[in-house]
Amino acid sequence: MKTVNILVEALPYIKKFHRKKIMIKYGGHAMIDEAAMDSTARDTVLLKYVGMEPVVVHGGGPEISRAMNKMGKEPKFIEGLRVTDEETMEIVKMVLVGKINTSIVSKICYHGGRAIGLSGKDSNLLLARKRAPHVVRDDETGERREIDLGLVGEIESVDPGIINMLTDNNYIPVISPIGVDRDANTLNLNADTVAGEVAAGIGAEKLIVLTDVPGILEDPSDPDTLIRRISVDELSDLVKSGIVEGGMLPKTLTCIQAINDGVSSAHIIDGRVEHSLLLEIFTKKGIGTMITE
Amino acid sequence: MKTVNILVEALPYIKKFHRKKIMIKYGGHAMIDEAAMDSTARDTVLLKYVGMEPVVVHGGGPEISRAMNKMGKEPKFIEGLRVTDEETMEIVKMVLVGKINTSIVSKICYHGGRAIGLSGKDSNLLLARKRAPHVVRDDETGERREIDLGLVGEIESVDPGIINMLTDNNYIPVISPIGVDRDANTLNLNADTVAGEVAAGIGAEKLIVLTDVPGILEDPSDPDTLIRRISVDELSDLVKSGIVEGGMLPKTLTCIQAINDGVSSAHIIDGRVEHSLLLEIFTKKGIGTMITE
Amino acid sequence: MKTVNILVEALPYIKKFHRKKIMIKYGGHAMIDEAAMDSTARDTVLLKYVGMEPVVVHGGGPEISRAMNKMGKEPKFIEGLRVTDEETMEIVKMVLVGKINTSIVSKICYHGGRAIGLSGKDSNLLLARKRAPHVVRDDETGERREIDLGLVGEIESVDPGIINMLTDNNYIPVISPIGVDRDANTLNLNADTVAGEVAAGIGAEKLIVLTDVPGILEDPSDPDTLIRRISVDELSDLVKSGIVEGGMLPKTLTCIQAINDGVSSAHIIDGRVEHSLLLEIFTKKGIGTMITE
Amino acid sequence: MKTVNILVEALPYIKKFHRKKIMIKYGGHAMIDEAAMDSTARDTVLLKYVGMEPVVVHGGGPEISRAMNKMGKEPKFIEGLRVTDEETMEIVKMVLVGKINTSIVSKICYHGGRAIGLSGKDSNLLLARKRAPHVVRDDETGERREIDLGLVGEIESVDPGIINMLTDNNYIPVISPIGVDRDANTLNLNADTVAGEVAAGIGAEKLIVLTDVPGILEDPSDPDTLIRRISVDELSDLVKSGIVEGGMLPKTLTCIQAINDGVSSAHIIDGRVEHSLLLEIFTKKGIGTMITE
Amino acid sequence: MKTVNILVEALPYIKKFHRKKIMIKYGGHAMIDEAAMDSTARDTVLLKYVGMEPVVVHGGGPEISRAMNKMGKEPKFIEGLRVTDEETMEIVKMVLVGKINTSIVSKICYHGGRAIGLSGKDSNLLLARKRAPHVVRDDETGERREIDLGLVGEIESVDPGIINMLTDNNYIPVISPIGVDRDANTLNLNADTVAGEVAAGIGAEKLIVLTDVPGILEDPSDPDTLIRRISVDELSDLVKSGIVEGGMLPKTLTCIQAINDGVSSAHIIDGRVEHSLLLEIFTKKGIGTMITE
Amino acid sequence: MKTVNILVEALPYIKKFHRKKIMIKYGGHAMIDEAAMDSTARDTVLLKYVGMEPVVVHGGGPEISRAMNKMGKEPKFIEGLRVTDEETMEIVKMVLVGKINTSIVSKICYHGGRAIGLSGKDSNLLLARKRAPHVVRDDETGERREIDLGLVGEIESVDPGIINMLTDNNYIPVISPIGVDRDANTLNLNADTVAGEVAAGIGAEKLIVLTDVPGILEDPSDPDTLIRRISVDELSDLVKSGIVEGGMLPKTLTCIQAINDGVSSAHIIDGRVEHSLLLEIFTKKGIGTMITE
Repeated sequence: MKTVNILVEALPYIKKFHRKKIMIKYGGHAMIDEAAMDSTARDTVLLKYVGMEPVVVHGGGPEISRAMNKMGKEPKFIEGLRVTDEETMEIVKMVLVGKINTSIVSKICYHGGRAIGLSGKDSNLLLARKRAPHVVRDDETGERREIDLGLVGEIESVDPGIINMLTDNNYIPVISPIGVDRDANTLNLNADTVAGEVAAGIGAEKLIVLTDVPGILEDPSDPDTLIRRISVDELSDLVKSGIVEGGMLPKTLTCIQAINDGVSSAHIIDGRVEHSLLLEIFTKKGIGTMITE
Repeated sequence: MKTVNILVEALPYIKKFHRKKIMIKYGGHAMIDEAAMDSTARDTVLLKYVGMEPVVVHGGGPEISRAMNKMGKEPKFIEGLRVTDEETMEIVKMVLVGKINTSIVSKICYHGGRAIGLSGKDSNLLLARKRAPHVVRDDETGERREIDLGLVGEIESVDPGIINMLTDNNYIPVISPIGVDRDANTLNLNADTVAGEVAAGIGAEKLIVLTDVPGILEDPSDPDTLIRRISVDELSDLVKSGIVEGGMLPKTLTCIQAINDGVSSAHIIDGRVEHSLLLEIFTKKGIGTMITE
Repeated sequence: MKTVNILVEALPYIKKFHRKKIMIKYGGHAMIDEAAMDSTARDTVLLKYVGMEPVVVHGGGPEISRAMNKMGKEPKFIEGLRVTDEETMEIVKMVLVGKINTSIVSKICYHGGRAIGLSGKDSNLLLARKRAPHVVRDDETGERREIDLGLVGEIESVDPGIINMLTDNNYIPVISPIGVDRDANTLNLNADTVAGEVAAGIGAEKLIVLTDVPGILEDPSDPDTLIRRISVDELSDLVKSGIVEGGMLPKTLTCIQAINDGVSSAHIIDGRVEHSLLLEIFTKKGIGTMITE
Repeated sequence: MKTVNILVEALPYIKKFHRKKIMIKYGGHAMIDEAAMDSTARDTVLLKYVGMEPVVVHGGGPEISRAMNKMGKEPKFIEGLRVTDEETMEIVKMVLVGKINTSIVSKICYHGGRAIGLSGKDSNLLLARKRAPHVVRDDETGERREIDLGLVGEIESVDPGIINMLTDNNYIPVISPIGVDRDANTLNLNADTVAGEVAAGIGAEKLIVLTDVPGILEDPSDPDTLIRRISVDELSDLVKSGIVEGGMLPKTLTCIQAINDGVSSAHIIDGRVEHSLLLEIFTKKGIGTMITE
Repeated sequence: MKTVNILVEALPYIKKFHRKKIMIKYGGHAMIDEAAMDSTARDTVLLKYVGMEPVVVHGGGPEISRAMNKMGKEPKFIEGLRVTDEETMEIVKMVLVGKINTSIVSKICYHGGRAIGLSGKDSNLLLARKRAPHVVRDDETGERREIDLGLVGEIESVDPGIINMLTDNNYIPVISPIGVDRDANTLNLNADTVAGEVAAGIGAEKLIVLTDVPGILEDPSDPDTLIRRISVDELSDLVKSGIVEGGMLPKTLTCIQAINDGVSSAHIIDGRVEHSLLLEIFTKKGIGTMITE
Repeated sequence: MKTVNILVEALPYIKKFHRKKIMIKYGGHAMIDEAAMDSTARDTVLLKYVGMEPVVVHGGGPEISRAMNKMGKEPKFIEGLRVTDEETMEIVKMVLVGKINTSIVSKICYHGGRAIGLSGKDSNLLLARKRAPHVVRDDETGERREIDLGLVGEIESVDPGIINMLTDNNYIPVISPIGVDRDANTLNLNADTVAGEVAAGIGAEKLIVLTDVPGILEDPSDPDTLIRRISVDELSDLVKSGIVEGGMLPKTLTCIQAINDGVSSAHIIDGRVEHSLLLEIFTKKGIGTMITE
């Protein structure tokens, strides 16, 4: 009986998001823990079957560093951005496209979804350009120095054609955050940014970012201060006030940008909690932070 | 959390019946009690939203008799079949099409479905012919006598065209058991039979008959003897042995016929139990009797 | 030979109205007299077969009153509008949807058309709201009194989707003037108004109102004063001058509104004359009053 | 009033032949007399507008001979077949395609149809091969002699693609009886035969041959002996008995062949009678000879 | 090996003009010399097969005069325009539509293309009106005199529907420069003008005019002064300066008009050079004069 | 001029293979040498632009071994088959899908094609099962021993759906030879076999295998003994006679199988020769060995 009452309670959400595109950023825990990835994949398939159009973007930082270490190459970061030489780029591509993407595709197919793996190189899906060199200020001398991050890119344009063709034909696209420039060079992209830009490019209803924290916290040290719902304006103020920081800052900026680009709502939720995706979509209270216009 | 676990448990059923037609016969309690009708309509809409294609056939016997009484006309039955003269036929039409069908359509629309009412007269959906006179044997004299039941019909053919067009365009057809013969005469049809024949005609996956009893009982006087699952062959044996009787007999025969005509499973369930429709479809054990090949 | 000359004479009209929607309001005589209804149905089918897209709206006032009397309920009117309590509404629905609509559908199907009955409740085709209470001035005291007419509605919006789907698939929609409000209540609508609003909503080329009089008369007491053709401006002047009155007034206002909403021409013709529908469409002179911009 | 009664009488035929292809062979009088051609074109357009799919094949013998004479070239026939050298073929093409076909197309367009002229050379519509030499027996010596008729062809295959595309898009194809062989040589074809073969190739419902006689006569010298309706079997017997002769013989054989190839009925009618086409299709009795299986 | 290098060199052009419409005006040599026509037809088919959409317009002046002479009728020109009485018009039609068009269609089909012949009369493709009388000034007296050229027309409008339908379905339309006025009269049109107007009407990428000269020459007497590439503005200046003259003037004006109407480039090339069509499209330097915005 | 003659010579092949699927197995040299891969990609795009539907399958053995060595893992082969433990499988996936596939996709896109990378895991494109253990006979003792090759699979079924959707929408699918079993395990597949099975599964016209040898040689040590054209029967005889051996044997068997499964022709050609793909398709003599029924 409970089964059925709950289905009935879910009906309004099923109706509301019928045929709407839901962009899901797989990240953190959901990428490492086999069981978590399994559960997330199953939830993604369920969204498809109850009539939504899930599109997946995944990250994979830790896995890349692990592979680099294994190949005797030391990962190097500057202010959170991976310095990416040719050899590193090759490893990034192999891990993201060859390992993580195929695993996610496999999990989704196993649970009955028809997943297709893509990277930004497929039919130039994610056209990018090399980022301008990073400017670093020497704390002591105060001098400003340019550091070239190598093959790190920023998105110029997203081509929604292939994604729309796939969702229209009942496939679930799974996208690796790899871009291509006009000279066919591969560029390393930030996965959160890719999720946000693709969400905007395909007119997604929702952008859901799976992380390893409960959501945006008023006091990052206290999980009990989770913000359940916040407007972009309020959130922008929080950002300005310096409360949002660390890894949460880029995710937050991505969400703000996505809302400004027409996505109806953005969600930052805890991917470690089982079925957090469904809890966020199918319950009124949700489980993480929901950002709306 | 429970919410979500249950959604996840429902996934296999959602997948299995994706884009499949589910014929639902509304009857008994579900036709009388406002709240029950409401609940059944909501459940029907949910089936649509999770990807199935519900088609509804409704009955309405008690309501017809009530209306006849109100108009000073006494209902008359011979062995369970309503003797239907011209005037009765007019009342039957008004009650089924004008009252019950519009109420169901209204309920379904209210809960977010796009219902369209139909009767067998619409584009000659249910082509029928007058039944042969009923033969009655006088228990005392042993004489056999023919009794003309009047405008009572049996289905000659079902035209699935309009129903398929509606389901393909996301509408939910709601059908009154009224037939039309080649001379445009209206004929009174048995609602269970209509449900079975239409289910077969449109290639439905399931036929679900909502009744006022728990299902088929091994001992009709003992609700604890509910048969959960039975094959047509076993059920035919039960019928021959005389265990299935009364109002359950024609429903049972309809189910057997539907299975023989290619419907994958037929279900007789208790419409009085809230959400019985969902319980039957989305739980392994179900709630009533499931008949399969 | 005559046969053929006449077909040839009809050709310009057939060409002109090819694939155009023709809204026909069945009323008066055409609703009572079996032979007249038969003839009107046949003519409607002919329009379909020579390439037009007929859509039918029907009325049914006298029939409703007859049914009410039969059920021991006295019809009550205030300034021509039926006071509609819950019980009356139920009878209205049963008569319009269950009796008249199914009869028209049957007639059209019998003559080879593929008619589908609809009411405003089907997929919320006619969304309506309760009319404001009627204000009556007491002739003696001069006092103004509000009278609630009950479940009498006015149209808020028409959803052309289902009608277009039906005409595109070669069906002939037959619509009962029943509306639904946002709370799923049924509302009694004026059939002429429904015909006009639906004509505008579906972009009909013509609105043809079948009545029991020859058309609009300059002198209502003299049938020889029939106005053959008149512009909306001239007709509005006639209305202001008080020459159009009685039952003709609302029909006239409906026609004026329809023209203003983009319908190319509106026609008020005598449904008692055999084949008046065809005479009006296929002859230069026509048979009733044609109103154009 | 008559107008309308006649339209109503035509309805069954309009219904019966809805969306059916009607192959019309223009010939004889209809090709010479301007008024007759005009009338035939108008009738053809009417068929289109009442829902049929007319396809026209035309002949043009007398016109060709006239043009040859004008160019100082003497027409030569052997047993009714035109001996066709290169120069003659050129004239045949110019007259049929450049003169007669464009005139018919023009007439049909003028009356509101969307005609497109074709010859068998367009996209190899009529693939043909050179006929075997004609064998003539010398009446005196009894010797058999082969006579090469030159560029006279017989149809190998009809490609219905272009015709179906045109009728599906509301065009009326008008076809000149010119064929093409595998080496791109132009071949002179018999127009009746082309009409019959194309009728079969496109699955026409009717083949209507317009001639200068009332139809098939039991006694060719007595117009009162017109056969109104005859089966292929009976007609084959007539042919064997030698009653059908002269120019009527090949037309008759074409009709028999067309029926055997699946055309439902073939008609030989008098093109000189105004609107004979409509009289044959829209009246029960018809005007000429109707041949059926 | 050369084969393949050349294919590879052609690739950029194949890509650039993929699915683009290429209007080709067949004229001069290409219309007279059998081998040249053959070669041009083969090249046209190749364009189709490598993904372009060729549309052909042909002329036929010399052939018409030849036919007139043969029929004992003397061709008459006033300032390069053929005086066209009824009889001449008939001959023009027969030669253009019946002879030249069918020959081109035949050649294209022989080389594997699916050509369909059209004239401006087909479905009123080229709606035209009679040209105003030509005004001639008497060199001696200085008097101005009007001369009626007879059935010579100028284009009012082009209906791209039938052409688009044909190219969309992989056919190659071949168009004779014959127009039709609103009264169904046939009018003689200038073939270059037709090519230009149709090119604009169907949104062609290129207009290629095949002539008997190398292109536009700076010094018409010196073939070495060929202008390879010129803008419309520069070309307009050349025209004003009187350098472009004779038969080249109308062709030049047509090209300027086409560019102004949105055609991307116009080409005047030498049809006598084998494969000039391909040389112009597939080589950087081209072979004739290319006019661009 | 040469340019154009060659295009014209290529026309018959362009026509013959219009809209036909051409399966190309990239291998050997074409996978290692950057310039060769570039040239092959450009040729593949050219095939697309001249109307064929290329589908690519690639191998990558040497690259995998290189990557394994780099990661300190020694490649192990048994009779030419790579022994594939979990860790090896991971490396295989990363190299094939993440490195080689993305490089090919990139090259094709750079030359103007719309490539999409796929592996057999995408939507379960290549359903496979683990191969039975390899049986090895000890040469000395004659004993037979089973050796488990690990995650090496053989194809159970190919799902042509996603490939057809991509080619129909003008994409070029590029497939990595990775399979998936019913439990979502990844299996290492032989690339030649995948090419053959997919060719059969999608109804390809041609299977072209790019290798590092000129083709099948009668005397493997003498390149002058190249067999230009051979039937499957003759080739089967060669195989039986032991002349075909080494790496050529499995390629040969794949080709034979593909022909038997309905592919019209199979080609083994030298990928080291520039534009060998085009030379084989567009010249009569070809460059390698062509196998036909």
